[in-house]
Amino acid sequence: MAALAPVLDHLDKNLDASLERLFGLLRLKSVSTDPAFNAEVRRTAEWLAADLKTIGFDASVRDTIGHPMVVGHHPGPKADSPHVLFYGHYDVQPVDPLNLWKADPFEPSIGEVDGVRVITGRGSSDDKGQLMTFVEACRAYKAVHGALPCKVTVLFEGEEESGSKSLKPFLEANAAELKADFAMVCDTGMWDRQTPAITVGLRGMVSEEVTIHAADRDLHSGVFGGAAANPIRILARILGDIHDDSGRVTIPGFYDGVEETPTQIKASWDGLGMGAAEFLGPIGLSVPAGEKGRSVLEMVWARPTAEFNGISGGYEGDGFKTVIASKASVKISFRLVHKQNPDAVRTAFRKFVADRLPKDCRAEFTAFGTSPAIQISYDAPILLKAQSALSDEWPKKALMVATGGSIPIVGDFKRQLGMDTLLAGFGLDDDRIHSPNEKYDLNSFHKGQRSWARILDAIAKG
Amino acid sequence: MAALAPVLDHLDKNLDASLERLFGLLRLKSVSTDPAFNAEVRRTAEWLAADLKTIGFDASVRDTIGHPMVVGHHPGPKADSPHVLFYGHYDVQPVDPLNLWKADPFEPSIGEVDGVRVITGRGSSDDKGQLMTFVEACRAYKAVHGALPCKVTVLFEGEEESGSKSLKPFLEANAAELKADFAMVCDTGMWDRQTPAITVGLRGMVSEEVTIHAADRDLHSGVFGGAAANPIRILARILGDIHDDSGRVTIPGFYDGVEETPTQIKASWDGLGMGAAEFLGPIGLSVPAGEKGRSVLEMVWARPTAEFNGISGGYEGDGFKTVIASKASVKISFRLVHKQNPDAVRTAFRKFVADRLPKDCRAEFTAFGTSPAIQISYDAPILLKAQSALSDEWPKKALMVATGGSIPIVGDFKRQLGMDTLLAGFGLDDDRIHSPNEKYDLNSFHKGQRSWARILDAIAKG
Repeated sequence: MAALAPVLDHLDKNLDASLERLFGLLRLKSVSTDPAFNAEVRRTAEWLAADLKTIGFDASVRDTIGHPMVVGHHPGPKADSPHVLFYGHYDVQPVDPLNLWKADPFEPSIGEVDGVRVITGRGSSDDKGQLMTFVEACRAYKAVHGALPCKVTVLFEGEEESGSKSLKPFLEANAAELKADFAMVCDTGMWDRQTPAITVGLRGMVSEEVTIHAADRDLHSGVFGGAAANPIRILARILGDIHDDSGRVTIPGFYDGVEETPTQIKASWDGLGMGAAEFLGPIGLSVPAGEKGRSVLEMVWARPTAEFNGISGGYEGDGFKTVIASKASVKISFRLVHKQNPDAVRTAFRKFVADRLPKDCRAEFTAFGTSPAIQISYDAPILLKAQSALSDEWPKKALMVATGGSIPIVGDFKRQLGMDTLLAGFGLDDDRIHSPNEKYDLNSFHKGQRSWARILDAIAKG
Repeated sequence: MAALAPVLDHLDKNLDASLERLFGLLRLKSVSTDPAFNAEVRRTAEWLAADLKTIGFDASVRDTIGHPMVVGHHPGPKADSPHVLFYGHYDVQPVDPLNLWKADPFEPSIGEVDGVRVITGRGSSDDKGQLMTFVEACRAYKAVHGALPCKVTVLFEGEEESGSKSLKPFLEANAAELKADFAMVCDTGMWDRQTPAITVGLRGMVSEEVTIHAADRDLHSGVFGGAAANPIRILARILGDIHDDSGRVTIPGFYDGVEETPTQIKASWDGLGMGAAEFLGPIGLSVPAGEKGRSVLEMVWARPTAEFNGISGGYEGDGFKTVIASKASVKISFRLVHKQNPDAVRTAFRKFVADRLPKDCRAEFTAFGTSPAIQISYDAPILLKAQSALSDEWPKKALMVATGGSIPIVGDFKRQLGMDTLLAGFGLDDDRIHSPNEKYDLNSFHKGQRSWARILDAIAKG
């Protein structure tokens, strides 16, 4: 077994050289959404493939229906070594408004923000800086031991910031080549500067539009008001029924597949000092709207929701019109967790609506997105190893967190390649990704490299 | 006391002459909403004043801030004779689309529709034909007896179809001159060709817009969904609470001032064959939405309502957006009956909303219209006399009905001049008022004249 300590030492001594390489990558203007940068996007892919080759990867730029992918393979020390697929993206967001940048977004440098040394430039955090933490860990292993501790496949995408249209077809066409024991993604953040985080849960979603149809025309409320069905009233009644007084969703079967979060995980979240005041205060609120008796972090990380995203019906202009509308509609989305079945939720919701319709009215349903939640078991070996490795590197113990929104690549890896994903990253909330003056803490870049070295070591130990 | 029979006989014998006069009035293009017709509107007023003078009225055209009024006074047989104010309007709706008319809208003639003889032309029913039924009744009295049976003041408006902006100031400026024992308005309809109707109840209205404000910005439902207040959910919950399972409005105090309709009046409505199927069928509905145990006619004529006229919030465009809106709003109107206090209803509604708001959200209220209901006591002597007189004239007994909408002039007479109003008219549902090919049944015109003669006779008898 290759020793870890000299690898970490090598990373410390070669930080400046790794920075030079990152700066080279950051200078490439790989803005994927703007066709004017197409050639530069391809040059970036070629830069990465060339760099991977210097480490000994069998790397190539692969054409797609959109921007190219970079794929690289490196064997493990043994035929049966663990096999990981590392994913990152090399494209970046546009830089507008340019006048708000303090320096050229494609001329990276080391600066200081609030006494902290940072790497500045577009992509420094999202995701070039992050993906290079992994590449540098591999480079150091190779330099010190002449080998990697695991079998490693690398997949770098060039369309993550512009819709990832090539990703699914590429995974499908190259499933056998890309399949590994599990995936690792470095595109998320730390809890804070001391506390690394592993994202183990991603809520899924069912979204739906419902239109309630009543009379076959708009009616005058003076003539028909009181006798004729009012679709806004029917809709409001249905929506008002969806949550009970304790904030629970009342749709029968809705909570099927929802699991209780382990006590020690909830305790670790409760210890973060992120209560209702801290979470809701910045948006002008104070009262948690979810299920009573649960913390705000549990609400957004580990509990399903029914949210009304838009409602419409009748006269919505200025002034007043005494109309009874012929129809009213709502856009509703359910965030799902754990093993909730999206199709079952959609079916139960539609029945819930139908059961509440007067018999002379009808509901029209339009399905929008459907995606199941992703939840890696809190006691999965890969998670526990990564948690331990990260905790060894950083001042505070690594946290297992969840996220309220979705990260589509994780679902694609699960559904298309049958792999769980380890989501670990070293971004910070103040990195200003997608905004002017993006930065990445120098410490994130350095300790991120060391973190991946530790994680690869832990995985190799089996 | 002047005998009624010879007056009715005179009306029968002079029907053709009365038609000639009506045709003269119908030829005048008194479209009040279009300034191009301003001179013609004034000529119409002058025509009416001149005609009233031929009957012995002290009549004049009176300037206003808009189109002129026609006011005429005729003494009664004695100083203490009952005094009635008769109101009608001489302006008409525009005639567009002209190509749908079978004949020139301002060239009246006698035609036949479904075997019924009708007067055709714009204003034949609304309201020139109707107002002339009263004028002809007066003319016949004067011709036969040389006197009217009551003291009569006539008020003809020229802006009823275009907002009546001069009416309130004119009533205010001439209150002493126009005040009578009660008003009579001939601008409503029969129940059917056999059954005359007196409108005794007019629902009032309180209209209001409410906006629920939650977070200080729109939120991503992935990040905040479940924890942050959703104003659409709050609004739906409030609106869903406004009606109970039996269709009753739950706002405390809402029914204060609502009276039970007398049993014999409800029985007369029940006898009309206008059940849920007949009332709701033509608009594609079948299930009454109002309070259980009440007929559809009672719902629209004698019960208050809470109707949602428009609702809006969040993303309402095509497709889907996983947003939690910062606000959502509804336009709500309450139709009031009997002695309900509009201000009390508004106050109770606002409290109802406020009581259901999470403490980190707020509601913004905008008041729109406020008008109390008008309800003439079913046993008021004027009503009973008119009902008896109409029942003598027509094949079936006159019905006391109500209307779900408002007729502003009635409220103005009540509030500004302290008078109740007798609403009786001879229009029919198929008169196509406001539409091409407006008509008035010849029978309505003829028996309408005889009806007013009978009503004046009944009033004079005291």
